[in-house]
Amino acid sequence: MGTGMVGRAWAARLAELGHEVRIGTRDPESTRARGETGEAALFGFAEAAEDVDLVVNALDGEAVLPVLRGLATALGGMVVVDISNPLDFSGGFPPRLFVQGGDSLGEQLQRALPETSVVKTLNTLNATLQVHPERNPGTVFVAGNDPEAKATVVELLTEVGHDDILDLGDLTAARGLEQWLPLWLGIMGALGTAEFQIRVLRPRT
Amino acid sequence: MGTGMVGRAWAARLAELGHEVRIGTRDPESTRARGETGEAALFGFAEAAEDVDLVVNALDGEAVLPVLRGLATALGGMVVVDISNPLDFSGGFPPRLFVQGGDSLGEQLQRALPETSVVKTLNTLNATLQVHPERNPGTVFVAGNDPEAKATVVELLTEVGHDDILDLGDLTAARGLEQWLPLWLGIMGALGTAEFQIRVLRPRT
Repeated sequence: MGTGMVGRAWAARLAELGHEVRIGTRDPESTRARGETGEAALFGFAEAAEDVDLVVNALDGEAVLPVLRGLATALGGMVVVDISNPLDFSGGFPPRLFVQGGDSLGEQLQRALPETSVVKTLNTLNATLQVHPERNPGTVFVAGNDPEAKATVVELLTEVGHDDILDLGDLTAARGLEQWLPLWLGIMGALGTAEFQIRVLRPRT
Repeated sequence: MGTGMVGRAWAARLAELGHEVRIGTRDPESTRARGETGEAALFGFAEAAEDVDLVVNALDGEAVLPVLRGLATALGGMVVVDISNPLDFSGGFPPRLFVQGGDSLGEQLQRALPETSVVKTLNTLNATLQVHPERNPGTVFVAGNDPEAKATVVELLTEVGHDDILDLGDLTAARGLEQWLPLWLGIMGALGTAEFQIRVLRPRT
């Protein structure tokens, strides 16, 4: 779901790995006309969600709830990989978070889709590194309420090439994952690149 | 300033490195009676701030402004190393941040002490690793509006043993540094230890 940098990166990488991919977008015709999605199979959001094994939410933060709430029934029983960030660019750069404190966009999405299993992951790094971790291998995180769904996502992350995946527990950990973004933006500014990663260094024993 | 884990760790380490150290606390007698500060020189906040080269703010987040605002004149012209985090434990664990969005406790402190140079640093890692980075070497950050003050702090960090110090620019970067705390708490919970660090991995060229 979504045809921004994250959605396009995932569609290309999953296809490369041999998966059948449908990209969900609001208006497939106008998306196709922009020429950014190559030969990927574009569908409206509802069609894209039909009979799939797994949904990747790569929508702009502000579109997540408006779009996916309407698909609550269609997404019932599915795993939703939530890569989104609650970024509000209305005040310019840097963006602010429009969900903070004792909540997260990931949890709001889970409440809006009670019959799905939302797993928050990969919102902490740039789209290229999400799907090509070999370019700068670091630590990625998963958080979600359903252990089976998390295992499915860990399998997908491993298939893509991630080899340091830290399970932060239930979906309340999405708060920390989303509130990391301001520091991510600060580091990006200091380094002049988005293709940095972080590695969690465990204590020496 | 402060006799919690961070203040005690810094007092001990700076003394070990040959610096003369005064610990500022609300009530030196009762602090001494608790027996946690060893043989360190305990002073009231105002006395501790007299004629020093540098002030380390290791107060509990909620005490920072009430205590330091009263020392605005005494601290004029000084560098204040701000290690504090705006943690609110009133709702239990995990704590929430009592400053968020387009502000930070570091910036609030700078506004309260307009004649000092506040440098935010080291709030992103555990007290032991702040002063003994060789136990788990990673990346630390500095942010502040005064380049000279930042250079002074970088010198201090280097003396303590930090060798990967990333300058995030002006004090607005304190927002990201403070909002990192929820993820830090999540990682601590997942690993079962506070003695982890992170390293920022620059892109391979």
